[in-house]
Amino acid sequence: MKPIKVGLLGIGTVGAGTFNVLQRNQEDIRRRAGRGIEITMVAARNLDKARGIVGAGVEVVADPFAVVNNPEIDIVVELIGGYELPRELVLKAIANGKHVVTANKALLALHGNEIFAAAQGKGVTVAFEAAVAGGVPIIKALREGLTANRIESVAGIINGTTNFILSEMREKGLDFATVLKQAQELGYAEADPTFDIEGVDAAHKLTIMSAIAFGIPVQFDKAYIEGISQLQARDIRYAEQLGYRIKLLGITRRTRTESGEGIELRVHPTLIPASRLIANVEGAMNAVLVQADAVGASLYYGKGAGSEPTASAVIADLVDVTRLATVDPYCRVPHLAFQPNEMTDVAIMPMAEITTSYYLRVYVKDQLGVMADLTRILADAGISIDAVLQKEPGDQVNLDIILLTHQTREKNIIAAIEKIENLPAVIGKVTRIRLETLS
Amino acid sequence: MKPIKVGLLGIGTVGAGTFNVLQRNQEDIRRRAGRGIEITMVAARNLDKARGIVGAGVEVVADPFAVVNNPEIDIVVELIGGYELPRELVLKAIANGKHVVTANKALLALHGNEIFAAAQGKGVTVAFEAAVAGGVPIIKALREGLTANRIESVAGIINGTTNFILSEMREKGLDFATVLKQAQELGYAEADPTFDIEGVDAAHKLTIMSAIAFGIPVQFDKAYIEGISQLQARDIRYAEQLGYRIKLLGITRRTRTESGEGIELRVHPTLIPASRLIANVEGAMNAVLVQADAVGASLYYGKGAGSEPTASAVIADLVDVTRLATVDPYCRVPHLAFQPNEMTDVAIMPMAEITTSYYLRVYVKDQLGVMADLTRILADAGISIDAVLQKEPGDQVNLDIILLTHQTREKNIIAAIEKIENLPAVIGKVTRIRLETLS
Repeated sequence: MKPIKVGLLGIGTVGAGTFNVLQRNQEDIRRRAGRGIEITMVAARNLDKARGIVGAGVEVVADPFAVVNNPEIDIVVELIGGYELPRELVLKAIANGKHVVTANKALLALHGNEIFAAAQGKGVTVAFEAAVAGGVPIIKALREGLTANRIESVAGIINGTTNFILSEMREKGLDFATVLKQAQELGYAEADPTFDIEGVDAAHKLTIMSAIAFGIPVQFDKAYIEGISQLQARDIRYAEQLGYRIKLLGITRRTRTESGEGIELRVHPTLIPASRLIANVEGAMNAVLVQADAVGASLYYGKGAGSEPTASAVIADLVDVTRLATVDPYCRVPHLAFQPNEMTDVAIMPMAEITTSYYLRVYVKDQLGVMADLTRILADAGISIDAVLQKEPGDQVNLDIILLTHQTREKNIIAAIEKIENLPAVIGKVTRIRLETLS
Repeated sequence: MKPIKVGLLGIGTVGAGTFNVLQRNQEDIRRRAGRGIEITMVAARNLDKARGIVGAGVEVVADPFAVVNNPEIDIVVELIGGYELPRELVLKAIANGKHVVTANKALLALHGNEIFAAAQGKGVTVAFEAAVAGGVPIIKALREGLTANRIESVAGIINGTTNFILSEMREKGLDFATVLKQAQELGYAEADPTFDIEGVDAAHKLTIMSAIAFGIPVQFDKAYIEGISQLQARDIRYAEQLGYRIKLLGITRRTRTESGEGIELRVHPTLIPASRLIANVEGAMNAVLVQADAVGASLYYGKGAGSEPTASAVIADLVDVTRLATVDPYCRVPHLAFQPNEMTDVAIMPMAEITTSYYLRVYVKDQLGVMADLTRILADAGISIDAVLQKEPGDQVNLDIILLTHQTREKNIIAAIEKIENLPAVIGKVTRIRLETLS
């Protein structure tokens, strides 16, 4: 059988990794796929650099549409990043009857519904294992490995940059700004780190996993997103003293409320018990914890980014797509796990309706009675307290009072915090971090 | 599209779980698969009990061959266990052109080559996600998720019974016999626990993973197998004091020797650094750590056994098989990851040729010079020492000397141990446990 022909859009870190791994392991890959997989055309901004990577046998062009419109190309691999140009290119590739493999989570989180519908209409596949948690085959696990299950929740460390920063802050007791600078120097954080540190990248990935887990459309605009840039070193320290670690988690979960079923979709710093396996995922590693009714808890761990780990996912998709390139589309795994005519419309819940536990840090003048005031406000709001810690943060005058609450509605805690901040003994804002037991 | 018809051979724990999960989640499963999956016939020893589980709508028979020979049945699910009868039934089902799903690791570790060849000949699939690590979709990860990679090693906690026993021994400081008895009372260990505690079950699963990882035939007879029944509580304690945990690991790995490439295939108690994620897998949970060239380390964690976790894997296979029931067999994932005509014949290495590190415990009369003798013997054998610990085991007279070695060939350590045991100060046998850093 003739090799399948692949056109690459973009040959940066992941593109070069994809080319190199396909070259290095071409024999093993062919022995598995039953057919050769060859990159025959590459679109790149820097033609000379691209030629330096792929050598003489591969056509290098400046115009990505030349790849997408080339009738010789069977599969287009989109590794450009961003939204608008990739959207156009992917839709054009689909319109031309080509299969697509992409690592672009932003594209799918925002335009996934449109893209998957177009692919469905043309009977082609858009594969995207590389879009979530790099080398960890979590899309495959959720979409194929757990088909027997009613999935209850997915909670993931799905951004390596922030996990690296949080690990360093905890291990070395450093503050956010210092560690961010180090991470940038080491290449773990970009020059403009906003997408990572503010949780946007994690929310893109979570949005995709949520759609697959629950059979709902991608709805990035409904995600609640809170990053780690406001996290203070002392909160990480206090959390540890209470037996917890702080991780930037993406959480999506089925919830039943008075008004029916809803889906949580949220990214924020989260206290989790230090004894949990996922709490021990350190550095730039990723891990996704899935709760499902038949299988219980399962966890998937590995590198979430980088040239070859991401290439590993791109190539796994290429092999899958190659195997089923010419079968009846009905035989393939649906893009979002459920058949397109079998999606549901369960609503994403507003954040105020979420139920979770909380870590509260209240910075107070050391006055008699302040603890009584705090506990009374919480008791009046129906919020019970799980643990209390009182610490001198070092200024010798004022105190940090840390409270861990039991589960309550987010809007309740917001109301209680407003009252707490109005107490005369309380200085500034209350620090609030959500807490999940993940049991 | 009409539902696909499934016949169940055996309706014990896993069979009942499969029936129940398929019933409970039938809507979600149909929405994913695009087609209903119905168990229409069950073969059981206890007909009344079987009828009690499946109700009136399902035909219950005593003769499993009646299922296998029923032209109405599309997929046969084999959950009988054992070797000979399942082999006959599975081969007959294949000969009748039916797809097969099995959870039977013993069957595949011993007769896999014959069964897969028969399936290949008839253009049907034998799916076996449930045979390894229950609910953890590790077969899918190895066979499809990591197709880009040259897999270097697989190391797994793949027997829940032994991991439960080792966790209890460590946490409570109890000895093996006491914990085994408790495990039997709790239902974590069988009345005859030999297959679990002697490592046979783990070796069955490891054999299957090894074949998939490296593209070699299943070769259970070449596996080195050592169980946990000889492990002493004090070795677990000493290991912990040195920063290690003892786990029953199944390890399969590519190795280069002077005579070329070889494959390690071995199950034995293993010291691993306590800081590794896999060292923190406790109780009856399973985890598999894979090292591969592009993706690096990845880990898969979940329940390894039990009714519904195993059913989850059986049903995931049913969905996969259903999707591709009628496609050209060439479009399906090959049974052992590599196309049947693309397998290799890399030899399984004899255990004496393996290179690893060792934990040695030498029980000695407290005599001057014994440490000098020990270290001289090891130095003469070219074995360097990484750590030493000296402990009084409690008898107030004699000493335990614990040595951690650097890497050496297994035959070297065996020769050195023989010399050590001949020292007049040494009492009894040297305890030897292999040590892997898994870095």
